[in-house]
Amino acid sequence: MVDINKAIEGLDWSKEPRGLYEPIEYTLATGGKRLRPTLTLIAAEAIVNGGLLNGDAIENALPAALALEIFHNFTLLHDDVMDRAEVRRGQPTVHIKWNDNTAILSGDQMLIEAYKQLALVPADKLPQVLKWFNEMATGICEGQQYDVDFEHMSQVSIDDYMMMIEKKTAVLIANALRTGGYIAGATPAQQEALYQFGLHIGLAFQIQDDILDVYGDPKTFGKAIGGDICCNKKTLLLLTAFEQADAESKAELLEWLMATDRNEEKIAAVTAIYDRLGVRETAETIMEQHTSLALAQLDKLPQNKATEQLRELAEQLVTRKH
Amino acid sequence: MVDINKAIEGLDWSKEPRGLYEPIEYTLATGGKRLRPTLTLIAAEAIVNGGLLNGDAIENALPAALALEIFHNFTLLHDDVMDRAEVRRGQPTVHIKWNDNTAILSGDQMLIEAYKQLALVPADKLPQVLKWFNEMATGICEGQQYDVDFEHMSQVSIDDYMMMIEKKTAVLIANALRTGGYIAGATPAQQEALYQFGLHIGLAFQIQDDILDVYGDPKTFGKAIGGDICCNKKTLLLLTAFEQADAESKAELLEWLMATDRNEEKIAAVTAIYDRLGVRETAETIMEQHTSLALAQLDKLPQNKATEQLRELAEQLVTRKH
Repeated sequence: MVDINKAIEGLDWSKEPRGLYEPIEYTLATGGKRLRPTLTLIAAEAIVNGGLLNGDAIENALPAALALEIFHNFTLLHDDVMDRAEVRRGQPTVHIKWNDNTAILSGDQMLIEAYKQLALVPADKLPQVLKWFNEMATGICEGQQYDVDFEHMSQVSIDDYMMMIEKKTAVLIANALRTGGYIAGATPAQQEALYQFGLHIGLAFQIQDDILDVYGDPKTFGKAIGGDICCNKKTLLLLTAFEQADAESKAELLEWLMATDRNEEKIAAVTAIYDRLGVRETAETIMEQHTSLALAQLDKLPQNKATEQLRELAEQLVTRKH
Repeated sequence: MVDINKAIEGLDWSKEPRGLYEPIEYTLATGGKRLRPTLTLIAAEAIVNGGLLNGDAIENALPAALALEIFHNFTLLHDDVMDRAEVRRGQPTVHIKWNDNTAILSGDQMLIEAYKQLALVPADKLPQVLKWFNEMATGICEGQQYDVDFEHMSQVSIDDYMMMIEKKTAVLIANALRTGGYIAGATPAQQEALYQFGLHIGLAFQIQDDILDVYGDPKTFGKAIGGDICCNKKTLLLLTAFEQADAESKAELLEWLMATDRNEEKIAAVTAIYDRLGVRETAETIMEQHTSLALAQLDKLPQNKATEQLRELAEQLVTRKH
């Protein structure tokens, strides 16, 4: 198995001008789960170990894996400017440590660096990998825009919400898997199974994020509990609450949404409404449905150690605490 | 000849979410010279008319031409945020008409849209075209960063300045030409000639920009005269002035650089120093040298109507008034 952390550390950012490359180095050094490139490599391994091609195919998947990780970090960098987020992975964000302009320009260069990695994909696979990458990147920008739009809308349906998180979170994970498999020689049916597996664990992953933001353990979650409640973020929990609430609970909820000065009280009160309505259980049920749909896809892949890793990963994602 | 304006108008931005695509449509509709995609198509035509390949090659160059125009407009969009520019081509900039976040996100999507066009380049040409595009895009981000760095440096050499404008302006024009020629079947020597032609007209173009900012006719220039002088921009004129000045003129110049409140007076005084030192003539000489170096490259290309157009374009660029 290729060590993805080593591969990321091996990227050379010691170039001039330092003002452009230092923030890129800083962003990639702050770590994170490395989930997406890991999925690309495991998907490649699942196909190769299935006996379709030789081991080079895993090495061949590395540039695409790096492209996806660099791209993911680019989205975080620009999102943090747009959200005015000050901390990411326990470190000051780029626009705080440097400034907005640096975050914009180094972010742009990161997006270009992702495409530089893509250009290293074997020529016969490049057109398809590039096309998928562009579709994925478009989905993520669209998802981000919908997320912004939803903030200003009084009513958002759960369907719209699921569409938004599919674009914003799930397509990147889905494409990471499909691309790894494709480079390793997956059949169209296997490519589709990897994509659908990724799409459903991506959705489950985001729903778990929404749940942890309210019900996570402050010791392990890594950020403050209730952040979504404070800023009235339209999460699956809030949208479900509106759907499941009677007139009285709905009125109470709406009243708390107006409150902007009593954060602690607001978090406790909204959480109590969620508890009363059984919102957490509903969200967990939806999450488990997506996990099941994901796991069912694995039957369509070669059964080997890598496929087993995908299964474990899917199960870990929905029981994770941070 | 393909009509580039029609091709740009033919791009479909009527997609959802409108908040993402409307600013892209707006940016591309504001026009501009369409210089870069035009150069791509003329370069393709110069090679095809030279008899190396059939007419399809010009059609094949269209996606790359569009990619370059979209990319160029993306750089303007993000530069305008970073420079806090309020007007572009007589219209409010995107961050003024909408807001900073919209300019960042729609800009990101524009960069991705450029790569979507690139993905339409014929598969056998794609790896090279993508690699060049990435190198060019990197050069432009590096050039932008140097431009920012130079603002905060007390001394910048003319060599450093030329390196900066090469990256920031010239490599895009050079790559536009080389890419068009390459797709049309240019030999390596022809590709290099097209690139060098573009590099030198790009440099001449930027120097003319610096000159027009001081000596342009306010009626035809399109923006206020003396903008670079007001903000102490390290243009070729200012750097040449420092190089050519005696101790007294240098002291006078430095004193005016400190002045931030008397703009009209400052423009008149600095222009007078330029006049006294013959700075305009020096800059024009350098510009003409680059134009000559560019024109000399054309001898290495097939001699036809398209090559003649390139010659006329190069000559127009240095005599242009806006």
